[in-house]
Amino acid sequence: MKLPGQEEFETSSGRESVPAGELNSSPGSSPDGPSDTDSRELGVSKDPLLFIQLNELLGWPQALEWRETGRWVLFEEKLEVGAGRWSAPHVPILALPSLQKLRSLLAEGLVLLDCPAQSFLELVEQVTRVEPLSPELRGQLQALLLQKPQHHIRTTGTRPCWESTHPRKVSYDEEAPLKEQRQNPLRWKLPPGAEAGTVLAGELGFLTQPLGAFVRLRDPVVLGPLTEVPLPSRFFCLLLGPPMQGRGYHEMGRAVAVLLSDPQFQWSARRASNLHDLLAALDAFLEEVTVLPPGRWDPTSRISPPKCLPSQKHKRLPSQLREVQGLAAQRGTPAEDRHRREPHAPSPELQRTGRLFGGLVQDVRRKASWYPSDFVDALHPQCFSAVLYIYLATITNAITFGGLLGDATDGAQGVLESFLGTAVAGTAFCLMAGQPLTILSSTGPMLVFERLLFSFSRDYRLDYLPFRLWVGIWVATFCLVLVATEASVLVRYFTRFTEEGFCALISLIFIYDAVGKMLNLTHAYPIQRPGSLAYGCLCQYPGPGENESQWTRTRPKDKDDILSTDLGLINASLLPPLECTQQGGHPRGPGCHSVPDIAFFSLLLFLTSFLCATALKHVKTSRFFPSMVRKVLSDFSSVLAILLGCGLDAFLGLATPKLMVPREFKPTLPGRGWLVLPFGANPWWWSVVAALPALLLSILIFMDQQITAVILNRMEYRLRKGAGFHLDLFCVAVLMLLTSTLGLPWYVSATVISLAHMDSLRRESRACAPGETPSFLGIREQRLTGLVVFILTGVSIFLAPVLKFIPMPVLYGIFLYMGVAALSSIQFMKRVYLLLMPAKHQPDLLLLRHVPLSRVHLFTVIQLACLGALWIAKSTPAAIIFPLMLLGLVGVRKALEWVFSPHELLWLDELMPQEDRSIPEKGLEPEHSFRGSDNEM
Amino acid sequence: MKLPGQEEFETSSGRESVPAGELNSSPGSSPDGPSDTDSRELGVSKDPLLFIQLNELLGWPQALEWRETGRWVLFEEKLEVGAGRWSAPHVPILALPSLQKLRSLLAEGLVLLDCPAQSFLELVEQVTRVEPLSPELRGQLQALLLQKPQHHIRTTGTRPCWESTHPRKVSYDEEAPLKEQRQNPLRWKLPPGAEAGTVLAGELGFLTQPLGAFVRLRDPVVLGPLTEVPLPSRFFCLLLGPPMQGRGYHEMGRAVAVLLSDPQFQWSARRASNLHDLLAALDAFLEEVTVLPPGRWDPTSRISPPKCLPSQKHKRLPSQLREVQGLAAQRGTPAEDRHRREPHAPSPELQRTGRLFGGLVQDVRRKASWYPSDFVDALHPQCFSAVLYIYLATITNAITFGGLLGDATDGAQGVLESFLGTAVAGTAFCLMAGQPLTILSSTGPMLVFERLLFSFSRDYRLDYLPFRLWVGIWVATFCLVLVATEASVLVRYFTRFTEEGFCALISLIFIYDAVGKMLNLTHAYPIQRPGSLAYGCLCQYPGPGENESQWTRTRPKDKDDILSTDLGLINASLLPPLECTQQGGHPRGPGCHSVPDIAFFSLLLFLTSFLCATALKHVKTSRFFPSMVRKVLSDFSSVLAILLGCGLDAFLGLATPKLMVPREFKPTLPGRGWLVLPFGANPWWWSVVAALPALLLSILIFMDQQITAVILNRMEYRLRKGAGFHLDLFCVAVLMLLTSTLGLPWYVSATVISLAHMDSLRRESRACAPGETPSFLGIREQRLTGLVVFILTGVSIFLAPVLKFIPMPVLYGIFLYMGVAALSSIQFMKRVYLLLMPAKHQPDLLLLRHVPLSRVHLFTVIQLACLGALWIAKSTPAAIIFPLMLLGLVGVRKALEWVFSPHELLWLDELMPQEDRSIPEKGLEPEHSFRGSDNEM
Repeated sequence: MKLPGQEEFETSSGRESVPAGELNSSPGSSPDGPSDTDSRELGVSKDPLLFIQLNELLGWPQALEWRETGRWVLFEEKLEVGAGRWSAPHVPILALPSLQKLRSLLAEGLVLLDCPAQSFLELVEQVTRVEPLSPELRGQLQALLLQKPQHHIRTTGTRPCWESTHPRKVSYDEEAPLKEQRQNPLRWKLPPGAEAGTVLAGELGFLTQPLGAFVRLRDPVVLGPLTEVPLPSRFFCLLLGPPMQGRGYHEMGRAVAVLLSDPQFQWSARRASNLHDLLAALDAFLEEVTVLPPGRWDPTSRISPPKCLPSQKHKRLPSQLREVQGLAAQRGTPAEDRHRREPHAPSPELQRTGRLFGGLVQDVRRKASWYPSDFVDALHPQCFSAVLYIYLATITNAITFGGLLGDATDGAQGVLESFLGTAVAGTAFCLMAGQPLTILSSTGPMLVFERLLFSFSRDYRLDYLPFRLWVGIWVATFCLVLVATEASVLVRYFTRFTEEGFCALISLIFIYDAVGKMLNLTHAYPIQRPGSLAYGCLCQYPGPGENESQWTRTRPKDKDDILSTDLGLINASLLPPLECTQQGGHPRGPGCHSVPDIAFFSLLLFLTSFLCATALKHVKTSRFFPSMVRKVLSDFSSVLAILLGCGLDAFLGLATPKLMVPREFKPTLPGRGWLVLPFGANPWWWSVVAALPALLLSILIFMDQQITAVILNRMEYRLRKGAGFHLDLFCVAVLMLLTSTLGLPWYVSATVISLAHMDSLRRESRACAPGETPSFLGIREQRLTGLVVFILTGVSIFLAPVLKFIPMPVLYGIFLYMGVAALSSIQFMKRVYLLLMPAKHQPDLLLLRHVPLSRVHLFTVIQLACLGALWIAKSTPAAIIFPLMLLGLVGVRKALEWVFSPHELLWLDELMPQEDRSIPEKGLEPEHSFRGSDNEM
Repeated sequence: MKLPGQEEFETSSGRESVPAGELNSSPGSSPDGPSDTDSRELGVSKDPLLFIQLNELLGWPQALEWRETGRWVLFEEKLEVGAGRWSAPHVPILALPSLQKLRSLLAEGLVLLDCPAQSFLELVEQVTRVEPLSPELRGQLQALLLQKPQHHIRTTGTRPCWESTHPRKVSYDEEAPLKEQRQNPLRWKLPPGAEAGTVLAGELGFLTQPLGAFVRLRDPVVLGPLTEVPLPSRFFCLLLGPPMQGRGYHEMGRAVAVLLSDPQFQWSARRASNLHDLLAALDAFLEEVTVLPPGRWDPTSRISPPKCLPSQKHKRLPSQLREVQGLAAQRGTPAEDRHRREPHAPSPELQRTGRLFGGLVQDVRRKASWYPSDFVDALHPQCFSAVLYIYLATITNAITFGGLLGDATDGAQGVLESFLGTAVAGTAFCLMAGQPLTILSSTGPMLVFERLLFSFSRDYRLDYLPFRLWVGIWVATFCLVLVATEASVLVRYFTRFTEEGFCALISLIFIYDAVGKMLNLTHAYPIQRPGSLAYGCLCQYPGPGENESQWTRTRPKDKDDILSTDLGLINASLLPPLECTQQGGHPRGPGCHSVPDIAFFSLLLFLTSFLCATALKHVKTSRFFPSMVRKVLSDFSSVLAILLGCGLDAFLGLATPKLMVPREFKPTLPGRGWLVLPFGANPWWWSVVAALPALLLSILIFMDQQITAVILNRMEYRLRKGAGFHLDLFCVAVLMLLTSTLGLPWYVSATVISLAHMDSLRRESRACAPGETPSFLGIREQRLTGLVVFILTGVSIFLAPVLKFIPMPVLYGIFLYMGVAALSSIQFMKRVYLLLMPAKHQPDLLLLRHVPLSRVHLFTVIQLACLGALWIAKSTPAAIIFPLMLLGLVGVRKALEWVFSPHELLWLDELMPQEDRSIPEKGLEPEHSFRGSDNEM
């Protein structure tokens, strides 16, 4: 179990802090390169990271000096001599001849492996002693080598990526590093235990033949001012010679540096026992290089670091190491195993125990062990932002659905019930549920069902709330049966096809509602066209003389404008409606109830908040501003968009519709208490009839709840604490009973807000090595953000004075943003886009490399048709069978097995439990890389 | 001289149609690859394009078949076997070992150069005869080779890139190509004269040793169904052998194909006389390859084709060829020479002749030779779009500046003068000027000056128009002196610094005006806040009883709503103001003159048209829709945005302010005729005093006119017909006289609209080879678009009924778009952005590789300060010295030589005439590549 905050240091590159003593534990070390996520988990100790620096001899013949012109950690950074700056990190590019020249120079030159030198002076002596040099030349050369090199050190402050207080274990005398070395900010970006490799290259006129030396120090030691960072040096390479054509030694020096930065070569070089081993490693490197033809690629153009480095686990690993890793993998914890499980090998929480309530018991046991961490893990500023964002989304949701509910049930329930229900159910769920990251809400399909139920009870002149209570009781019963029989294991049949169909439907409902409500505003505040009668509004007083005195009293003050037009009128004025009422008059006329300018201003607010939230979310990937600022702007994009909208609204001071929070704490239906009585005016047998709609509702709730849970528990979100399908459903059943008794709305997990919640809790590695891309580490799984959100929602019942400044159009804009974000995140949409792209402009998806385009399109069109059918079912009077149609998605997916081959379904969707066996083993492999490519799109 | 339309076929890749007979004209051929623009101009005949296809032997041992799995023209396309589609073109990537294996296979195998085979059968016999094979095996092998290969042919229709009717000259018996070959759409994308190279590779179990053959056919011949396109084959390569590890033969086959697609290797292979030559070519290829280290680059990821291919002219060309090209370059036409002239070697139009009016005479002579083509070149649909777009921009400009002018001169001039002047001056300029692409307009600085002149004349109680006439006469005189003394050669001192300072200023004035006018609308149509008295508006009738009858008459019809509120009122109703007036009443009250909703709707229209134009412009680079649709959307972006705005406005039917075109054809100033009398009421000596402001105005006109001309004649726009600085200034002088006499506004070339005009006339090559990027070929230089635009402007005086549907906010939005587009196109803005980016996120500009960041920022800040000073000068009462300050920019630039080194100025700006000599020759080289990288940003 991890302590909070510690995960910051688990970058995906998995560079581990390895004590100096363990450096040579060779059998367990792997040459996997820093990009392998798994090695950390496997517990295999690794070679330390190598920082490589190229010092070049410049200024021959007059003003010889060593200057650092390149450096490598993962990628190459080149010193732009003219501009005096480091280039952006890029994939190093070599010319083949320089590698070949290097090979022959090494073959002829000096190779010292496990050199015992303890200082740079000793090293220089060793290197120059062996060479056939005249004593005079040797002295000159030694003096030259000992000359202090020029480093280009960026002195701007940088946050340390690694704990700066970590004392490096050095057991040997170090030459005291210079101040500029010690202050180099790069030092704090390298992990503790990192070693250095230095390459010295250049042309030296007094040499008659090339001089090459490759040294591996037995004990790494800081070689004085040689490297820009005071790291203990492990490798040292010298490449000097008489002037030659081109920048030959520079290129050779780069070649050594690139070789050393290659994980495979480095692994071999650390273990080489003679020249032969070293040359073999170089040849192995050459075997693996990628070659670009000269006529089609300009070698001066720089390639940006790829998003993910090549996985060398299977290809480039010596076989004995692979076995070690395989063993280590079996020792992994269950949570880690989930990530590398075979496709659709059922995860532990979805394995049937065969006992009554067996799944529930297991869920409770599993989640109990994480319970303390569910609170401790929330101690991170990111959670604060998440709370703000999700709180606003939740209350907007509560308001909107409360309003809709009041509309659908003719005032039997309303906004206050919505607030109270959300607060009570949400708080309880966050405290008890298996998956506390989901946010409860009365979702679109539930609302549709409630509307049907109400009109049904009205048709039969039933007392709605008692009837509804019985439906709730039955639903809770059915759900308990489902929990007892471990029905949740059936979610394995919910493939990506079902999930994305459902998710698309919910997102579309979000978008439709946001736009629909926005357009409703233009009906509430009609646009005044030239012909419309918006001008006429008079303030009429009850009778002549009655309020005359009051009117006359205000006369001389500030209403001159009005009174100047008051000719011939006795008992009317042109006061605006509000003031008129205050003065005791009655506003009369067609224009009195229309408020001008509101419709378009609302539309502007709506678009502004939507576009602003979208734009701010994308600031994260822009080039502007420091990364800290970009992160804040991106994380708080919704909150900032809401604030901007409120500011704009407050600045203009128009009477836009605002968020209305009820001011009195009492049920919306007049005359009822908080408890619903089980029978009321209904005959007793209606409590039995209620089982029928309850059955349909149970299906709906099961689908709605579990699909959301399946989506959130997708492998790609890397949840570590596991799911709790049975426990979640049990909680829903209990809450069903509770809310029905209190006459509150019904709740299940809401897909869109829950996804937004998870998205606001993403953990990413800090990229430390130049050019490294931050990688997704997982989600901050905890119960606190949800809990605070729902408590705040409850408190909001009393927050009316603050919340009333938020204009509704701004919230609709944020809703639109959430719907669009959820919709565009699913793979289905990417395939819909493919329909609009000519084949030659389509992105290079792995999917398209393996499935014919016509089959991809067919699959997409079928999905679109299902979506259309669901939408129609939801909108027509047949909406009561909507839950069954949702279930039908699973059937459609099953039927697709007749249309598509398992191979195609593997790429287009994922396999259902039985299909696993029908496809050859090797066919299953690409799925992981497919998912990877998905995210890249 | 080119015929119209013919340039479509001049792609930058310069693949020329070479008759078959000339194929072997080896001394003049160059291995430059198809990407070299110059070779076309040089008239050097080139090797034909090679289409290379890899047929792979699949299905061993049961179902042997040949299948095409890869093809190459410039880049590689791979057959995705699973998906049954061609991959996107990408840079081919090889593994080094496959090249080495190939080399040894070729060294041991059969190499037939100038093989005389006339059919595939003969070829197969020749290839198999030489090998030490048993007769039985040979028979089997021959049968196998003659088997028809499977091609994957896209059958969707594609427009031919090359004239499809062009008959290929084939002098040998061809085997009749199959129907699918003949119908292959790829056939029409390859230029006439293209040849094929076929590689056959695969594993063949019955072979005991590898079998390699490389054949160059003496006379290229269509080898039956071997290639997917029925092209005559020049090269044939066979790589078969016993099964080996990995896809060895596949990779070797790809290696041969990539080698053959390399221009340098292909050049050598066409001329090789023995095996040694061929291997030497392969070794030369290996010397030049780019190597990517395995640990940092995933060889399975595909690299998209680069935007520009590496230039191999200098680096990879054999020396004797370079001389040939050098000679050919000297034979180029003057217009072509301009593109490759040394930086700032004065172009011919800027060389002083030393004679009075010498420059003018030369300009006239030079332009006269292009005159007929100036009309013929306009026959292209693109010009239609350009006319529409520029026409709308021009009349908007005329309206806006006309309105401003009327405002500034108190009605002495107005919209009608603006229209008439634009039409007259523009038409004359398009017919006479040196640079017909510029669009005349009364620019911002001119307007500032006119405003000052008017207030001056008012202060001294002068008759404005006669005084203005004298200023015009003097300006014309001064301009003629400038023309006579060839002062235009001084524009060589207008470096990028001056141009961009001026251009930024003009763009900012555009943006400022657009936004300012939009905000003015919110004053004209105030937003109605809750407290404002917008409600009160009564319709009052003259006296009781007077119009009562009329009022009563309309009573029963449809005004019930109003009348129901008519209690107690005798002589007033609530009719809207317009109807009230029609009924004979008087609208009374504070709310009568405010039109609600207009302000926000105008803002919406403004934003919509701006965003829509911007978005549509970017559709060109999106992945969606066929390229034809994208091109139309992008080319007509402004027109479509205007139409959308008009549609939206018409749909809602609000009373937004519309484009107002005068309905009567008479001068705005009442009582004057069209001719301005030279003295009027002014004393005679004012005609002498007028020389003083005229001097300042002359400076302004010279700067304004010539900077615009310099910008448009930039090398990067690739104008071919040359500039005409002297002639342009002469025309401006003449028009000055004309417009002053008629009392019309003054005109010079307008930067922003002229740039938009050029941009709408860009010619781009059609990319024919898969993966090739279309390259910019130049501008459709002609006089017709401008002419039609100005004639239409003149006609528009009578087009009021149509144009009145265009809402002004839409036009302001388009103005904003034009200003933003012009502003963001200049390099200065890119440096301003750099100020906001942290160093590590800055793009990899060549500029930043060579100049320290602090120096770049210093230069940018100085430019910003100059811009600020100009803006202030323009806005304060000291605006009369504004022309001098503009001239001061040149001085500031000169002074910068004290602050920056010539090397820095070369990268940041460009060099002024004298500086050229102060920098070593090689330092000048990078400028071209800098410009290139600029455009890529």
